[in-house]
Amino acid sequence: MTRPVRVLPRTDNSLNDGTRMVEGTSGQRSTANDTAVTAMLGTDPVLTDVVPALIALPGMTPQTILTSGAPMEWPEYVGGQRRAILGAAVYEGLAASVEEADSLLHEGRILVRPCHDYACVGSVTGVTSASMPVWVVADASTGSRGHCLLYEGSERQRLTYGVWNETVHQRLVWVRDVLSPQLSAALRSTGGLRVNPIIRRALGMGDDLHSRNTAATAVLFQQLYGAVLDANGLSTSTREVLAFLSQNDLFFLHVAMATGKCIADVAAGTPHSSIVTAMALNEKQFAIRTAGTGDRWFRSPIPALDAKLFDDIGVEDTAFMGGESLITETVGLGGLAAAAAFSLQDYSGGSAQHMVRTTEAMYGITQVEHPLWKIPSLGFRGVPFGIDAARVASTGIAPSIHMGAALREGGHAGAGVLVAPVEPFREAVDVLEGALPTA
Amino acid sequence: MTRPVRVLPRTDNSLNDGTRMVEGTSGQRSTANDTAVTAMLGTDPVLTDVVPALIALPGMTPQTILTSGAPMEWPEYVGGQRRAILGAAVYEGLAASVEEADSLLHEGRILVRPCHDYACVGSVTGVTSASMPVWVVADASTGSRGHCLLYEGSERQRLTYGVWNETVHQRLVWVRDVLSPQLSAALRSTGGLRVNPIIRRALGMGDDLHSRNTAATAVLFQQLYGAVLDANGLSTSTREVLAFLSQNDLFFLHVAMATGKCIADVAAGTPHSSIVTAMALNEKQFAIRTAGTGDRWFRSPIPALDAKLFDDIGVEDTAFMGGESLITETVGLGGLAAAAAFSLQDYSGGSAQHMVRTTEAMYGITQVEHPLWKIPSLGFRGVPFGIDAARVASTGIAPSIHMGAALREGGHAGAGVLVAPVEPFREAVDVLEGALPTA
Repeated sequence: MTRPVRVLPRTDNSLNDGTRMVEGTSGQRSTANDTAVTAMLGTDPVLTDVVPALIALPGMTPQTILTSGAPMEWPEYVGGQRRAILGAAVYEGLAASVEEADSLLHEGRILVRPCHDYACVGSVTGVTSASMPVWVVADASTGSRGHCLLYEGSERQRLTYGVWNETVHQRLVWVRDVLSPQLSAALRSTGGLRVNPIIRRALGMGDDLHSRNTAATAVLFQQLYGAVLDANGLSTSTREVLAFLSQNDLFFLHVAMATGKCIADVAAGTPHSSIVTAMALNEKQFAIRTAGTGDRWFRSPIPALDAKLFDDIGVEDTAFMGGESLITETVGLGGLAAAAAFSLQDYSGGSAQHMVRTTEAMYGITQVEHPLWKIPSLGFRGVPFGIDAARVASTGIAPSIHMGAALREGGHAGAGVLVAPVEPFREAVDVLEGALPTA
Repeated sequence: MTRPVRVLPRTDNSLNDGTRMVEGTSGQRSTANDTAVTAMLGTDPVLTDVVPALIALPGMTPQTILTSGAPMEWPEYVGGQRRAILGAAVYEGLAASVEEADSLLHEGRILVRPCHDYACVGSVTGVTSASMPVWVVADASTGSRGHCLLYEGSERQRLTYGVWNETVHQRLVWVRDVLSPQLSAALRSTGGLRVNPIIRRALGMGDDLHSRNTAATAVLFQQLYGAVLDANGLSTSTREVLAFLSQNDLFFLHVAMATGKCIADVAAGTPHSSIVTAMALNEKQFAIRTAGTGDRWFRSPIPALDAKLFDDIGVEDTAFMGGESLITETVGLGGLAAAAAFSLQDYSGGSAQHMVRTTEAMYGITQVEHPLWKIPSLGFRGVPFGIDAARVASTGIAPSIHMGAALREGGHAGAGVLVAPVEPFREAVDVLEGALPTA
């Protein structure tokens, strides 16, 4: 079966940027946090389309490759994240080989940029290039849009997990040329699917919407299969698409991620607010953003992941290679909603009781209880929503994150709980309070 | 919203039949109960087909109308159950009017029989006539087969809820002529769907498989839509069928019921065993059967249902009109699996904690924990399986049953918990111990 392990990051680079000064007080912060959270809760995210990244993402260019986490210089990427970026360069035809791609990246003729700066989030390596299709989740009232690549399939070898070869290439082509056009046609014919009711329903069916999306995927399928058939007819490729949607329990995760980004970005830039708007990993660092500190990343080394690995996998086989699915925790799902997803207990927490205690602790560092997303085991209490960096800093209680473990050579290795380091939250608060310079 | 009420049965007829003597001891009983439960757990129920009752049910005749609960004489049926039986007689063309049907029923030229004697169970009125299609759930190793009508739809007016009119008639015709042939073709093309994995999965997604079948219905849809399309092509009627399967959250209930009957009947007739093989309601009585007492019913008045009714419905608007969905509790689901289905707490139990206590109490009156059907909130403990009438009798703890409340004039009025009366269990044990004559 499986056994518990601690997956340790291999490197330890803590770097923070920034120089500009602002001031902030606790009273200002409280009002600002109310503003930020009210804005986020005022959104009504709608899954509207699937569109190539070049068209969907503001500022995207053919020479840009997005990846997970706070940005690093190209030579800093050394593992799966590097392999996936090189693969994407070849996939896009920007280079004829990974060697040529490496040269072009060194020269800055291919650019590596963080997903989060492009209204986008990515799973694991998060590598997203111009022609790859992304989900579009939009809020009409604010105009906010969140995007995320489509789920690539359950094969061990995926660009998501840092693998680039002909099999991965062919799968990406299928996602681009078959899956995405059919989903786009289906979604456009429906006028879009509201995501809040799907998440609400899935929380009542044992999902946390991060490590477990089994129910949300089933509910999405019930809502979307008809539009897929109506828009595309019944053909061999339609049957492939429907099979893909109905047989991959994590399929909805990337919709949940795009939704989280759509919601969180509404709060970004709220002056003085210490509400967290992003948590992300690159290969070497955990990093956060808060509403009041804008685009600045507060970074720290990656803490250990308490994980249970699948059979025949040792901790030496695993590696961190980035990840922005933590956007689900940023909006109250994943580890914050642990008490909704007892089926994950063997991987995340050890027992139902522990998962209840996890969510209860998260109420201590969040601004409100979500009015729509409810947890049955807690008497339909709303999920803890709006992580307040100031409360993390003052209590020392850090967000509990449900995360998958990645195989060093590619693939899904298991799952577990990553407790965020407190330092980046403290540092963000110091900046908000004017004790530290801002970026 | 909704409010808690106690739905009281309107009549109070306790009758028990029987004369034959047997003997039994506690040691014999213990061995017999192990035998009975082992046999039930040895089944692997497979959903194989949808077939007209006349063909599927052993002993069924064109003049027979099956209904829920221990049998009564025709004049004893006075409410919704009576209306549904009369409607079915007209539906089958056995009579030109309900008045003629009434005469033929009085004369015994149309027969009313209990579903349970025909390898069948029925929801609420449970009225099943010759041409109506039933699910077939079969266990290959024992040859046991359980059957149940298809879900009739979510309209308030249903034969299931004691309504007979032209709208109900047309819906039954659609179920017979459109839904059933397509499902039959689909299931036969798959070679059948194993039910145990679906129930296991649904318990991990918040279903109790009685009052809540939301997840099981979604999982069944994921497994069956492709076969529906392959076997029937894509047409307007196929789209109607797929919409029906994907939009009725209780659709799976009748599959769970046929499965329960398939499993329970394997234990029926085990000498000396006090394991319960049926619990059922007619309009006036709650009744049980045990493995060691064969076809005999042990009856008592219907206890109060602690229910929460939908808006604008008063307790005076409700009525008991039979029901055999209690077969789900008979095999460890429904109220016995309360701790799996916290989403039901407003209707059944009041809180997640109460639902945990309910399931915990059920371990005290059951033989084993099911090896496959697990409850995440209890650390994946198996559902309490194999209700032992002797333990009910000695502890005074009776099965907790998750039940829908019916509107007197037809329709679903709400849901709640019915705690079974202890007397029938005591009486069955007395018979098993030779203290009372057997039937």
